[in-house]
Amino acid sequence: MTRAELIGHIRLKKSFLCVGLDTDLAKIPAFLLNETDPVFAFNKAIIEATQDFCVAYKPNIAFYESLGPTGWETLQKTLECIPPTHFTIADAKRGDIGNTSAMYARTFFETYNFDSVTVAPYMGRDSIEPFLNFEGKWTIVLGLTSNPGATDFETRMLDSGKKLYEEVITTVAGWGSPENLMFVAGATRTDQLKELRALIPEHFLLIPGVGSQGGDLREVVEATLTPDFGILVNASRSILYSSDGKDFAEKAGLEAKKMQLDMADLMS
Amino acid sequence: MTRAELIGHIRLKKSFLCVGLDTDLAKIPAFLLNETDPVFAFNKAIIEATQDFCVAYKPNIAFYESLGPTGWETLQKTLECIPPTHFTIADAKRGDIGNTSAMYARTFFETYNFDSVTVAPYMGRDSIEPFLNFEGKWTIVLGLTSNPGATDFETRMLDSGKKLYEEVITTVAGWGSPENLMFVAGATRTDQLKELRALIPEHFLLIPGVGSQGGDLREVVEATLTPDFGILVNASRSILYSSDGKDFAEKAGLEAKKMQLDMADLMS
Repeated sequence: MTRAELIGHIRLKKSFLCVGLDTDLAKIPAFLLNETDPVFAFNKAIIEATQDFCVAYKPNIAFYESLGPTGWETLQKTLECIPPTHFTIADAKRGDIGNTSAMYARTFFETYNFDSVTVAPYMGRDSIEPFLNFEGKWTIVLGLTSNPGATDFETRMLDSGKKLYEEVITTVAGWGSPENLMFVAGATRTDQLKELRALIPEHFLLIPGVGSQGGDLREVVEATLTPDFGILVNASRSILYSSDGKDFAEKAGLEAKKMQLDMADLMS
Repeated sequence: MTRAELIGHIRLKKSFLCVGLDTDLAKIPAFLLNETDPVFAFNKAIIEATQDFCVAYKPNIAFYESLGPTGWETLQKTLECIPPTHFTIADAKRGDIGNTSAMYARTFFETYNFDSVTVAPYMGRDSIEPFLNFEGKWTIVLGLTSNPGATDFETRMLDSGKKLYEEVITTVAGWGSPENLMFVAGATRTDQLKELRALIPEHFLLIPGVGSQGGDLREVVEATLTPDFGILVNASRSILYSSDGKDFAEKAGLEAKKMQLDMADLMS
């Protein structure tokens, strides 16, 4: 999906919502455990109920990987349920030496045909470039994450006078373009989001941390929204697990709709 | 496997060799492509030919993941061929927010029963601790890697006067112990390995980069060997692809034996 297409979907739907598919067997409604593939049954219902209110889906690869080989079949079937109008993100946080990163890129872009994959920056340029080399695909690099551990290394000051995540973002921005590169920026750090946006006024940001992790949507939007929108705000647990009864999908749809309406308000 | 057991195997075999199973369909001998599972057939032969000369095997997860769901079955079958005397490393370079890292830990420690997994440090403490919480398992954290991109962020100076990788190593060392925590330290940077060893005199180092990547074994050993040995030196391509003929396993065994003999010399 191109940047122009993504922007078009956001404009049309008045939504920059990404639904995170962190589907956990221990958290889905118990009655689904009788299904042949409970995770797939859950995802299918969630996608049907939420697709009108979101523009992207983000399967969290850890949750599929942990199920063994069949978890990857569940992932494939899940991807087949996502309409082509929706941007797909493999939340995988991969990154390795060049020839290995090229293998990871093939996995997510070719074997599974995702639009994008999240990548960790620690190992530098040759760990990221193999992802950027795929025509028509997106690389989403960790900038400032939403978790408590972000203060251990990401926010440490370098002798250049920049924090590590600022250095990562400005350096990596030079390796791609706003047409094939996004950054992860956590909603739990709205004080820093405005400064981060000033560094990269054109790139899309993937913003986790609204919902269960406590980030405030209005503050996030005020700090990061651009004329091209430029953000995807992810919610996972707050949508997926709105109910543990037979109405789980209906309730997830209502929660997604509520977020979409809030977004529409904030976009106008 | 405990630290004492690992040290025992190194002493007995006079080897700290780890064979990296970066098995690539595009590089294995062509005649194997007629097998039902060419990657497994290759791995099985390589393991049989090299097991007397090494103490560890390190499947590079990217190479299995790229094959789709069946790649993970190949990985499982490969693990079943590795004798219990050999330390197993999932070279996966995972790392995410706490609940997701816990899923990755379950994947490699429970679903696949690896002894250890490699983890990226960018996201900090709560991305690493879920791995350390598994009794009897090891976490191998990226310190200074062997690839060119290591100079983009890893070697950048912080305002504390330490380089980022030094800060990572000393900080993460406080979250585990030499009984459950190792670090990746690339053999292509022997000038920095001695300083790195001084920071963590007791931890095992997993050292890639000898062989195809150009690191020198003698220099590495002089910089890092301890009274408890304290190192696993990995070689992948230089062993796996010694020959592309029918004698591929025999040649791989000879190459592994040559490295073991060099190691025995350097240990005495």
